[in-house]
Amino acid sequence: PELAPVAPEEKDPLEEYGFPLTGTEARQYINHALAYDPAKRTPKWVIEHLSRTKTVGSADRKHCKFKPDPNIPKMFSATNEDYLGSGWTRGHMAPAGDNKFSTEAMAETFYLSNIVPQNYENNAGFWNRMEMYCRDLTKRFEDVWVVSGPLELPTSHEDGKKRVTYEVIGADEVAVPSHLYKVILVREKGSEQPLAIGAFVVPNSPIGFDHQLPEYKVQLEDLEKMSGLLFFPQLDRDKGLKPLCDVDSCRLIQLHEFKLYIAARRVGGARNLQKLERILSELKEEGITPDGYLLDLYEKKRKEFSLKSGTDRDERKG
Amino acid sequence: PELAPVAPEEKDPLEEYGFPLTGTEARQYINHALAYDPAKRTPKWVIEHLSRTKTVGSADRKHCKFKPDPNIPKMFSATNEDYLGSGWTRGHMAPAGDNKFSTEAMAETFYLSNIVPQNYENNAGFWNRMEMYCRDLTKRFEDVWVVSGPLELPTSHEDGKKRVTYEVIGADEVAVPSHLYKVILVREKGSEQPLAIGAFVVPNSPIGFDHQLPEYKVQLEDLEKMSGLLFFPQLDRDKGLKPLCDVDSCRLIQLHEFKLYIAARRVGGARNLQKLERILSELKEEGITPDGYLLDLYEKKRKEFSLKSGTDRDERKG
Ligand SMILES: [Mg+2]
Ligand SMILES: [Mg+2]
Repeated sequence: PELAPVAPEEKDPLEEYGFPLTGTEARQYINHALAYDPAKRTPKWVIEHLSRTKTVGSADRKHCKFKPDPNIPKMFSATNEDYLGSGWTRGHMAPAGDNKFSTEAMAETFYLSNIVPQNYENNAGFWNRMEMYCRDLTKRFEDVWVVSGPLELPTSHEDGKKRVTYEVIGADEVAVPSHLYKVILVREKGSEQPLAIGAFVVPNSPIGFDHQLPEYKVQLEDLEKMSGLLFFPQLDRDKGLKPLCDVDSCRLIQLHEFKLYIAARRVGGARNLQKLERILSELKEEGITPDGYLLDLYEKKRKEFSLKSGTDRDERKG
Repeated sequence: PELAPVAPEEKDPLEEYGFPLTGTEARQYINHALAYDPAKRTPKWVIEHLSRTKTVGSADRKHCKFKPDPNIPKMFSATNEDYLGSGWTRGHMAPAGDNKFSTEAMAETFYLSNIVPQNYENNAGFWNRMEMYCRDLTKRFEDVWVVSGPLELPTSHEDGKKRVTYEVIGADEVAVPSHLYKVILVREKGSEQPLAIGAFVVPNSPIGFDHQLPEYKVQLEDLEKMSGLLFFPQLDRDKGLKPLCDVDSCRLIQLHEFKLYIAARRVGGARNLQKLERILSELKEEGITPDGYLLDLYEKKRKEFSLKSGTDRDERKG
């Protein structure tokens, strides 16, 4: 059979020099993925998969440095200078502490593509406790997915109008979010379908120990409308998915435990016997009795220092 | 040679339920394309290709209605109710008037995915004149590409800080841009490479006839940094591309011509002889002498009405 002549395909002139690039495609790293917002110089969302094995290991944030993500064009990237002196800390979305298994994975969480300007007390306090809670979930669930990101939400004004207002910092005008969100999805061992999901929105401001996670619970669909995002698009939400706080405690650690945790972290990083002793005496002054874990760590460190000082003496002698 | 056994490919658990969807992929329509911002309920950018043939024809905006874009999920879409009573007009990014060749193409520009909340005087005045200028370019250039979109830009405050503030309107909290931009690229007939490019940023507020386009000229790279977008990614910018206002007038029509244009549009839409006469007398009161084009149109319409009134009389008689 004779083939009809095929006209050369006419290229749509609309696309001749390409459509504008929004730069919001998904970007993958060793242990997280994210979509970047080139106008705000922050991520739009950062997704992680947590498991017991990944949150333990010897990777240490001491060896990590905040730096521009080499995958983001310079003109759309934040720099450390944008943050320094701004009054805002560099807040991780995928936390460093979820990547103890790999120094490389941890180092990637220090790329500024994973960072938003965050209130200091929020970062060190409530958000930190939320991150601990997510890691703690890996003890009870085989798989934990967490999506984190910034929001700029409107407020109502006296003139009856609603407005979005947010600060921008540094020469690159990095957007300071008014709020931060986390979506947490958990699945039990041997299960096909996730058991529960929770969505939380917290203000980017200090939140004390008198507050607990369920106060910041929102409907997933409401968060989606606020953020313009659709979370876990391949998840069947109708298959008996439960609210996270119904099947798990949603309990963030209290001040007492938090101080023990911070003290343990300081003991682990102490460089000499004097500093080590100071941490313990400060804790006692606050009326907190060290727990077994902290005491063990303290003893281990003390032995290290006496050994080392013995060696130092030997070297000096020799 | 024996083949080594291949391990079943392990699926990255990170992606098991999909990455969050940002919804900012390019969407194509008959005569424009756009990327939508699901959080702001406005486009991020809208691109058009203009040519002489597409800006002439009988398509009439009378037959078009503003409506939610059926391709945008309801939860991320604006509605007419969001705009009505807000104090802001529904401003086209791809103008209806660029689509005279096709009623279907014109109707698609009335989808709210192509619309931003725009100041009335800006929409009817300066922005309108910019749109006329873009159409006028098709007389001198074979191909004209225009990208239009909204911006929310920061301002400096007395406390030394920079902030972005914008109103959101309606139940869907549609973002009101502080500024609007256009990027215009032109290519001469028979030319492989575009001749010139211009980028313009105007405030979303009234701009009078004492202002001209070159006052709003910006560097393309500066607009890219403000918007987070990369324009015409497949364009070779080093190949002797000139600034648009160096090779063309960048001259927007003046008040006198503008009034004649508006009068002609009103004459075209007049429904009876009385209204027709009023348009002409109002123009004379303003001290403007109708030009040949307007007078021809007026005569044509007058004949239509007398014919019609004759027919009406005949019908009544019959
Ligand atoms: Mg942190
Ligand atoms: Mg308009």
